[in-house]
Amino acid sequence: MRALRIHHLGVAVTDLDAAIATYRQYFGGEVERRATVESQGVEAAAVRVGQDRIELVTPLGDETPVGRFLAKRGQGMHHVAYGVADLPAALDDLAESGAQLIDQEPHEGLFGLQVAFVHPDSVHGVLSELVAE
Amino acid sequence: MRALRIHHLGVAVTDLDAAIATYRQYFGGEVERRATVESQGVEAAAVRVGQDRIELVTPLGDETPVGRFLAKRGQGMHHVAYGVADLPAALDDLAESGAQLIDQEPHEGLFGLQVAFVHPDSVHGVLSELVAE
Repeated sequence: MRALRIHHLGVAVTDLDAAIATYRQYFGGEVERRATVESQGVEAAAVRVGQDRIELVTPLGDETPVGRFLAKRGQGMHHVAYGVADLPAALDDLAESGAQLIDQEPHEGLFGLQVAFVHPDSVHGVLSELVAE
Repeated sequence: MRALRIHHLGVAVTDLDAAIATYRQYFGGEVERRATVESQGVEAAAVRVGQDRIELVTPLGDETPVGRFLAKRGQGMHHVAYGVADLPAALDDLAESGAQLIDQEPHEGLFGLQVAFVHPDSVHGVLSELVAE
């Protein structure tokens, strides 16, 4: 399987508006999309930085995955997402390679994207996401 | 200041060869450059993943910056680097914006790149690097 590119870098923050302002001021970032997703317990903003993208996520409560991440690790990089042309085939390849998949099948992620996550234990500590492009 | 793109995502690992093999097998990554840099206490590999790049770094000893990072945080994402067209001007802009710069001036980073780091306290927990392009 060959990833096309880094689709985005996911960053967990405590204050979404403050983080958006920082990425705008420091790196010229521009908000591309913003959404609250109750089912995932996050408010998120996709921020274009040049030709690439930072996905800022803040938890809707402490007892959400991102809320627990912040309590344990503090603010910072949360995951990296790779764009792939054929997500089901990519997941088959990863499973055959022995990767520990969090999601066996694609599901709807933020902003309506089809996504699946690979466990960080399989990728040297990096929570890795695949995004269908 | 406007970053051109994400130049690379820096990942700290304990075993460079194993990590290179993982990125090759799972994401089609290809080693672009590899170097041991005694002055920075790391062995590093730049791995192309599609049109983007992961920089894998492993420490040469426990008492190095990356060695201490691994002891404290474990393997995982270490920093993100943005490409900029005019690094000295970008640093001036960041300083004027009140960003906490680790490096006031560009210096030589891995693979001969001119780089400077911004403290994670200024960027919501993300150690951020600027790379002259």
